[in-house]
Amino acid sequence: MQTTKPELYTVLSPALLDLYPVEKSIVVIIDVLRATSTIATALYNGAKAIIPVDSVAECIRIGKQIDSITAGERDGQIAEGLEYGNSPFEYPREFIEDKTLVLTTTNGTKLLHMALAENAKAIITGSFPNLSAVCDFLVAQNQPVILGCAAWKNRVNIEDTLFAGAVIDRIGKHFSINCDSSQMAATMYHDAKEDLFEFMKVKNASHYKRLTGFGLEKDIRYCLTPDGANVLVIYKDGKLVV
Amino acid sequence: MQTTKPELYTVLSPALLDLYPVEKSIVVIIDVLRATSTIATALYNGAKAIIPVDSVAECIRIGKQIDSITAGERDGQIAEGLEYGNSPFEYPREFIEDKTLVLTTTNGTKLLHMALAENAKAIITGSFPNLSAVCDFLVAQNQPVILGCAAWKNRVNIEDTLFAGAVIDRIGKHFSINCDSSQMAATMYHDAKEDLFEFMKVKNASHYKRLTGFGLEKDIRYCLTPDGANVLVIYKDGKLVV
Repeated sequence: MQTTKPELYTVLSPALLDLYPVEKSIVVIIDVLRATSTIATALYNGAKAIIPVDSVAECIRIGKQIDSITAGERDGQIAEGLEYGNSPFEYPREFIEDKTLVLTTTNGTKLLHMALAENAKAIITGSFPNLSAVCDFLVAQNQPVILGCAAWKNRVNIEDTLFAGAVIDRIGKHFSINCDSSQMAATMYHDAKEDLFEFMKVKNASHYKRLTGFGLEKDIRYCLTPDGANVLVIYKDGKLVV
Repeated sequence: MQTTKPELYTVLSPALLDLYPVEKSIVVIIDVLRATSTIATALYNGAKAIIPVDSVAECIRIGKQIDSITAGERDGQIAEGLEYGNSPFEYPREFIEDKTLVLTTTNGTKLLHMALAENAKAIITGSFPNLSAVCDFLVAQNQPVILGCAAWKNRVNIEDTLFAGAVIDRIGKHFSINCDSSQMAATMYHDAKEDLFEFMKVKNASHYKRLTGFGLEKDIRYCLTPDGANVLVIYKDGKLVV
């Protein structure tokens, strides 16, 4: 019996999403530094749900309506009017368990809303801390997949591409891949996998420079390490949950 | 004396062009398989000028107005109403010398017109056959550069990315590069440079498959070989000339 493998595409920037068959695909939102890493971590540590919003004002508004914690940064600082930042280390179990987090992130949330508007079959978030959970889910679902890199203001970035490559490296054989972006992501990951942090440093990745400039080297190392918060994060009714 | 190097960016798809400072940059239009390779070849072989147009109808219309050769393909065949195709081997000196070629290409022409609309400082075309001429020009100009990949219907492709990487490999040190796409292109090229053809094959590049499906392996090999038609191609008053 011949079986047809589902298609897998990598979308390197939100500006390219509409070129791909979103409606029939599971879309993985990838915003490695640091949104989707922090989301996985907070949920792994027992957060009840995370509400992703695309502006500080919306974050404040929802924070007033429901019992929740508001969080988000602008230019490396906790945004005015919010309580916490974007670092995964701000959300240990003793703090976040059973709480709802309203998180504003620019790039990841934008892509998530685009996937939603285009009627994605399902939306999950992906990051190195929950790499295995993402891979296991995608293989089990056996549906078409879009690995959606959140990028930086639509500019392609290395770290989201590397995560797409890591997924392809692990589970690409289960999919039909006719997609040069996927081949590029896999090639990048192959070059980088021995030491992702060092690769980011050597390649002078824009986000590496930006975050180390804010003293966040520890965050970067955590966000590039697999399975530190290995839960599947899925978007349901406006919330990210496990 | 401290000198500031001009910026260099790589744009992996026309859909991303508006994120970059086009107005102050020299834009290199890259459509390796096969438009910009054929353009370099025809001009190297003495063509008077090449008029790039974005539709078969426009190609026919101009062909009727001026003494010229019309050319273009759709789905690997010479388009109906046109005389010649997209292969560089169709344009030897004994045929093309002193003639004007009206060429319709989808992706490269679209990007060129976008760069024009955004008031690029100058527009040149780049391909492996004229790699050295492109590099020498960019270094001599000492201006900001955008390496613009024509891609395939806005989907990122490997071969245009590799050409951007080849340029960065040769002359990157003359520029200030804060651009993850450029780092990715350089990484890809570094992996591929020993045998670009084999790399395209192994990576199952979509365009490699498409063109070998049409029996055009010889075209691909030529289009991936440096300096076979080493002239600088510049856009002036609606025409590509040397």
